[in-house]
Amino acid sequence: MSDSGLAQGLPEPPYYAVIFSSRRTPGENGYGAMAERMLALARAQPGFLGVESVRDAEGLGITVSYWRDEGSIAGWKRHAEHLVAQERGRREWYAAFELRVARVERARGKRAP
Amino acid sequence: MSDSGLAQGLPEPPYYAVIFSSRRTPGENGYGAMAERMLALARAQPGFLGVESVRDAEGLGITVSYWRDEGSIAGWKRHAEHLVAQERGRREWYAAFELRVARVERARGKRAP
Repeated sequence: MSDSGLAQGLPEPPYYAVIFSSRRTPGENGYGAMAERMLALARAQPGFLGVESVRDAEGLGITVSYWRDEGSIAGWKRHAEHLVAQERGRREWYAAFELRVARVERARGKRAP
Repeated sequence: MSDSGLAQGLPEPPYYAVIFSSRRTPGENGYGAMAERMLALARAQPGFLGVESVRDAEGLGITVSYWRDEGSIAGWKRHAEHLVAQERGRREWYAAFELRVARVERARGKRAP
């Protein structure tokens, strides 16, 4: 991720995106520390390409992570610490979420000067 | 879009996602009214399935719109009013952006009770 918060300079498509949109439950409950830890772990995974993550003051968030291939996504999904966070997320941190896996077919952008 | 702000109840994949991540320039400059108008127009397009949109206080935003097929995306891209907004976006509203078109291959979620 660049300083802009955007995932820029990725390889040419095709690659994969995991689109995770969520509505938080009220209260902090250790969420911030977990989210930071999961981002750090994801960045260290084989096949990780980049991530973009935004949450607004009302608790609506979208995180899109980008991966080289389906195998990289599968590896991250079954990472031991991530499995614990997924379970706690379902039970405690997220009132609702949608997770979609998508194959990026083309990309374009504008870079800050 | 449901009240949760998440795009829920979409048809089964495959369908398409347009992932638009952006960093705003400082100042309002008519951005809010345009963004609202574009969302309303997109919702009325053939093949539109849903949208999720978040922007944080620092100006980082992610909007993911979902579409039945590539043709629906092409139709929306060349909508006359949208073309004007795209041009003004590149020139004035966005310091940087990335736009990716992706084919959603699978989806799962948790619905609020």
